[in-house]
Amino acid sequence: MENQINVALLGATGTVGRQLVQQLRGHPWFRLTEVAGSPGSAGLTFGEAVAGDSEDPQARFGREALSLQLKDPADAWTAPVLLSALPSSVAGPLEVDLVGRGHLVVSNASSHRMDMGVPLVIPEVNPDHLALLDRQEWPGALITNPNCSVTGLVIALAPLKELFGVEAVTVATLQALSGAGKPGPSAGDMMDNVLPHIPGEEEKLTSEPQKILGTLEGGELKAAPFAVSAHAHRVGVVHGHLQAVSVKLARPADPAEVAKAFAGFRGAIEEEDLPSAPKKIIEVLSDQARPQPRLDRDRGGGMTVSVGRVRPCPVFDVRFTVLVHNLVRGAAGAALLNAELCHARGLTQGRVLR
Amino acid sequence: MENQINVALLGATGTVGRQLVQQLRGHPWFRLTEVAGSPGSAGLTFGEAVAGDSEDPQARFGREALSLQLKDPADAWTAPVLLSALPSSVAGPLEVDLVGRGHLVVSNASSHRMDMGVPLVIPEVNPDHLALLDRQEWPGALITNPNCSVTGLVIALAPLKELFGVEAVTVATLQALSGAGKPGPSAGDMMDNVLPHIPGEEEKLTSEPQKILGTLEGGELKAAPFAVSAHAHRVGVVHGHLQAVSVKLARPADPAEVAKAFAGFRGAIEEEDLPSAPKKIIEVLSDQARPQPRLDRDRGGGMTVSVGRVRPCPVFDVRFTVLVHNLVRGAAGAALLNAELCHARGLTQGRVLR
Amino acid sequence: MENQINVALLGATGTVGRQLVQQLRGHPWFRLTEVAGSPGSAGLTFGEAVAGDSEDPQARFGREALSLQLKDPADAWTAPVLLSALPSSVAGPLEVDLVGRGHLVVSNASSHRMDMGVPLVIPEVNPDHLALLDRQEWPGALITNPNCSVTGLVIALAPLKELFGVEAVTVATLQALSGAGKPGPSAGDMMDNVLPHIPGEEEKLTSEPQKILGTLEGGELKAAPFAVSAHAHRVGVVHGHLQAVSVKLARPADPAEVAKAFAGFRGAIEEEDLPSAPKKIIEVLSDQARPQPRLDRDRGGGMTVSVGRVRPCPVFDVRFTVLVHNLVRGAAGAALLNAELCHARGLTQGRVLR
Amino acid sequence: MENQINVALLGATGTVGRQLVQQLRGHPWFRLTEVAGSPGSAGLTFGEAVAGDSEDPQARFGREALSLQLKDPADAWTAPVLLSALPSSVAGPLEVDLVGRGHLVVSNASSHRMDMGVPLVIPEVNPDHLALLDRQEWPGALITNPNCSVTGLVIALAPLKELFGVEAVTVATLQALSGAGKPGPSAGDMMDNVLPHIPGEEEKLTSEPQKILGTLEGGELKAAPFAVSAHAHRVGVVHGHLQAVSVKLARPADPAEVAKAFAGFRGAIEEEDLPSAPKKIIEVLSDQARPQPRLDRDRGGGMTVSVGRVRPCPVFDVRFTVLVHNLVRGAAGAALLNAELCHARGLTQGRVLR
Repeated sequence: MENQINVALLGATGTVGRQLVQQLRGHPWFRLTEVAGSPGSAGLTFGEAVAGDSEDPQARFGREALSLQLKDPADAWTAPVLLSALPSSVAGPLEVDLVGRGHLVVSNASSHRMDMGVPLVIPEVNPDHLALLDRQEWPGALITNPNCSVTGLVIALAPLKELFGVEAVTVATLQALSGAGKPGPSAGDMMDNVLPHIPGEEEKLTSEPQKILGTLEGGELKAAPFAVSAHAHRVGVVHGHLQAVSVKLARPADPAEVAKAFAGFRGAIEEEDLPSAPKKIIEVLSDQARPQPRLDRDRGGGMTVSVGRVRPCPVFDVRFTVLVHNLVRGAAGAALLNAELCHARGLTQGRVLR
Repeated sequence: MENQINVALLGATGTVGRQLVQQLRGHPWFRLTEVAGSPGSAGLTFGEAVAGDSEDPQARFGREALSLQLKDPADAWTAPVLLSALPSSVAGPLEVDLVGRGHLVVSNASSHRMDMGVPLVIPEVNPDHLALLDRQEWPGALITNPNCSVTGLVIALAPLKELFGVEAVTVATLQALSGAGKPGPSAGDMMDNVLPHIPGEEEKLTSEPQKILGTLEGGELKAAPFAVSAHAHRVGVVHGHLQAVSVKLARPADPAEVAKAFAGFRGAIEEEDLPSAPKKIIEVLSDQARPQPRLDRDRGGGMTVSVGRVRPCPVFDVRFTVLVHNLVRGAAGAALLNAELCHARGLTQGRVLR
Repeated sequence: MENQINVALLGATGTVGRQLVQQLRGHPWFRLTEVAGSPGSAGLTFGEAVAGDSEDPQARFGREALSLQLKDPADAWTAPVLLSALPSSVAGPLEVDLVGRGHLVVSNASSHRMDMGVPLVIPEVNPDHLALLDRQEWPGALITNPNCSVTGLVIALAPLKELFGVEAVTVATLQALSGAGKPGPSAGDMMDNVLPHIPGEEEKLTSEPQKILGTLEGGELKAAPFAVSAHAHRVGVVHGHLQAVSVKLARPADPAEVAKAFAGFRGAIEEEDLPSAPKKIIEVLSDQARPQPRLDRDRGGGMTVSVGRVRPCPVFDVRFTVLVHNLVRGAAGAALLNAELCHARGLTQGRVLR
Repeated sequence: MENQINVALLGATGTVGRQLVQQLRGHPWFRLTEVAGSPGSAGLTFGEAVAGDSEDPQARFGREALSLQLKDPADAWTAPVLLSALPSSVAGPLEVDLVGRGHLVVSNASSHRMDMGVPLVIPEVNPDHLALLDRQEWPGALITNPNCSVTGLVIALAPLKELFGVEAVTVATLQALSGAGKPGPSAGDMMDNVLPHIPGEEEKLTSEPQKILGTLEGGELKAAPFAVSAHAHRVGVVHGHLQAVSVKLARPADPAEVAKAFAGFRGAIEEEDLPSAPKKIIEVLSDQARPQPRLDRDRGGGMTVSVGRVRPCPVFDVRFTVLVHNLVRGAAGAALLNAELCHARGLTQGRVLR
């Protein structure tokens, strides 16, 4: 297609990277022209590196992506936009280096999410935070998306904050295996079992939401002043993080009002018509037995967050259950939607790669 | 053995009933002499009814139990003590009928747990509630044990209430399949999935704890004045309910103090030396990855509650994870321990069957 | 669309029935105009009966199907073609009654598969068996498709029989949960377990293949003269039956020749271009770790059979692994493809409903 | 206990090694006095190395074992008997070195199983193969036990060979996760899935049985002259390998005779009363739905092999299902029973360490 811009993908051979290659296939705005896997894989084609992929690679990724030569992440890049699905262990200094070279880096890694000047963005929730980019002093620019569990939680909290105010949140997560990357927990450890701890996850759940739901005041980002208490669990599910949430509202609301707030959430980018934005940001399910990971994770192509069991909370104001597709809405789709937002707002030209 | 008393078991062929038959095998105080299954099974022996049992029936239940003839629950009973593992759908009026006939009924059913004059007892926590029996106007007496999830939660809350006071609790449970009885959820529904709703479970979690932790004042039971908010989930685990708990204390305490309170919990019946009481009521695990259902459910023969991940709570005071063997500590062992408590306190003679 | 013919579906609310409704959505030749569920559900709409369906019913089935009124299976039917996804327990006499009333009944039920005059058809393998219909003495006609496991096995055996001859077969199956219908085995029975027996399955595996691969001689069907030994297991997989097969060939062939036979299998209906026929009937996988149910079951929309691990057999001639999507290629898609075959050969007009 | 002899354990911290430490606890003949883990772990105590063990380490292993210092496998050893649970990758040259130093090495590793002069022994089946030790030219001696799947298969074949003769065997296995060691397959790969390939497993299943069931002729071992065809699968089960077996007998026998042969199998060491030998070598189950891994693997403390579904085979003579606890009967218990056999036959004194 004409007018497409070139994008490169770092960390292309990991779980999130592969999902991104799949979602970039046939993308109306972006053309995947360069890829890097782990440093050791440079030289292979993407197709050779994913030959054992869990599906028919050609049907999933397309012939063009399969033939791309894997570069080293530290190589020079031609594309103005770099999508980073790098593991946090290597993303930190490398991403700084890349924005220093003038690229727009749209990152799924956690390394820079909480950096003061780096926007942590869910397009429907806080696209105004892109204003932070004006203060970044790099030749390029860096934008990040949140942790996969945080994304589901914040999308549910956003309309509540807007309509009623949020004062406190407790959340217990039942997280899917694909969120652990490769290889993740062993089957011998997971069989007839659940794990009560995911290193680093509760810390993200208790700090990222406040940044995303924070407000810009005089160019400074002020975190939203509510506390989150999190309990993260790993369960034997392939994809889909389920979350049991209780919220203390600033202004009391009954469950019907809260359900209406979820269902009516239009988000801040409705008119920008981004290609990866779902028709419905939140789907409210009335069946008490829903949402369930296997049955509901794919709604809206994996970009719709499902909410159910909206009911009063004996301790706070309202209880409900959230389901987010961790790999799509919570990672690959999140990064892609951020890239689309940047493109729609002219950030993939001009300043970048100047 | 001499001096053993006869006990009968109603609901013997269900999941909890079978577990009770197993635990009664070789019991030093009780001799199982009569059993009833579902009404339709009367006439068969217990052995015939459980021929397809999930283990070697003879090794599990013993020859004597296998040869017992199944009665109809509504039949006349000879034993002074009746253990009831009946489903709630039939336990309600039947248990009242049986205490009317002079038996001590020790019930695992939910039907009468919240009845004002019926003690809802965990022996280590509130044995003093047996005083309610003095006010029961039946020829016999009725005592109940709590829901399986409630049992784990309350055992963890008991030392906290005693030492610091409890003001509010949120709990999310990941409950095992055996808690659903037979047949329970289908494998097709559970595979690659979790269920966000267990009918009736959250209601029990938000009302039973306050009764158990309540105080007797002038012969009246006053419920403890704290609120519980619960989210119950079913997960693909055979046995063992995991619970993520956050607690607001009346008097602040740091995690080290709380962990010490758990580890030091001796309970109220330490000196009565009941046969089914575990050496340790609570085991505190220091490994952040524990407790886990498969690895920790069998501690103390299934009667020890495991607690781990004691850490500060950003919203309340303290967060931790509880694991309880739902079928042992939460059901069969709970009823048996109650029967032992009654026996130790002379309630299986005298008044009963007078 | 013009020229579409009306079809009715019996057993529409079961696992196979729902799959058929889904596959009939937007079908170029057939228009679903009548449905029946279980006798008790008559009066509801199809949409009401599947409201709790495991996916978004509207996205899956389409608005038109959801609004169809459920009839009783024994009612009068207007459509000339009846697809039967009835359980075998009711299909037997009912299907005879329906062909007696002049309908073309295309059945997935096992009741009449082995009846001498009833063709048991996999379109790519034995479409010539439709000639048996000429001898059926009903006003209508009855055609059946094989058991789900049999379908995968026979599609793999067909090219071997053609090129080398088949003298004996042993097969061990690892069958998915969806093959058991609703509710199927309980999660408590399947967790950390496999089941070594599926009632009736081995009998089908040892008799249906010989009929399908049999030859018509003078209008009489002669079963192929080879023996099959089967071991059927149920495993914790959602969809996809895996089969470990060893074959004694009439004429020795090395694994490379056998793999070539699989890959080159074009089938007998290549030129009829049936809408549900896959591009590739058999996909041969070279990775020793494949096929795997979750990774390969959806090839060709679930209609392609995957074969891997083609290697010598120390006892017979060749060993290999087969994977078939039990619900698509093995049931709903099998019936639909048979209906399409009948339509392409003019059997849905003329004689039927005369 | 008096008269106990000292044994050392190499590979103590792996899955099989831990099981051996557990089974050596309180052993009447053997006292565990030395242990080695992986080379990197030398210096730690065994207790430190298994601190995160999947159960309460003290309850499982005992205080004494936990306090043993881990040596390097290549160190000098004091105990006359060395149990080897080493991975095959290191067992090969190291075990030869150790027998060269005069030890009796009882190995579970596959490295030397098929060496001509090394006995591959299941005590109940071929204890006479110990005669091969007389020809070993090392100062010490080396004896091995078979692969875990082979052990179950051969125990079932032994009485058939004796009574009817065995001419050919096909076997399909559904193998548990613990057979893969640590970490084994990832949960993300196993969920909603089975694996059709276990590297090296089929090769062992098609060669080891013939050696074990072979005969000594003039001091030379002649392999039994039958062929085995194997299909090995990995399934989501914690412990317990299930096997679907078809056998061609030399002399026809009906299923009742075959079942009687299984049930009547007494083995060759009945009178030696080895501590780890089960009362019943084979348990024949009459329920068509059995054996099942979770329900039957622990029979006889994991040392009894369960057999069920004995029925005619349309291709060979008889079909049946075998279940073996891979970690006990198939590995740790197998090595321990071999060590006990050697001890009972005086092989742990005299020649060894001379």
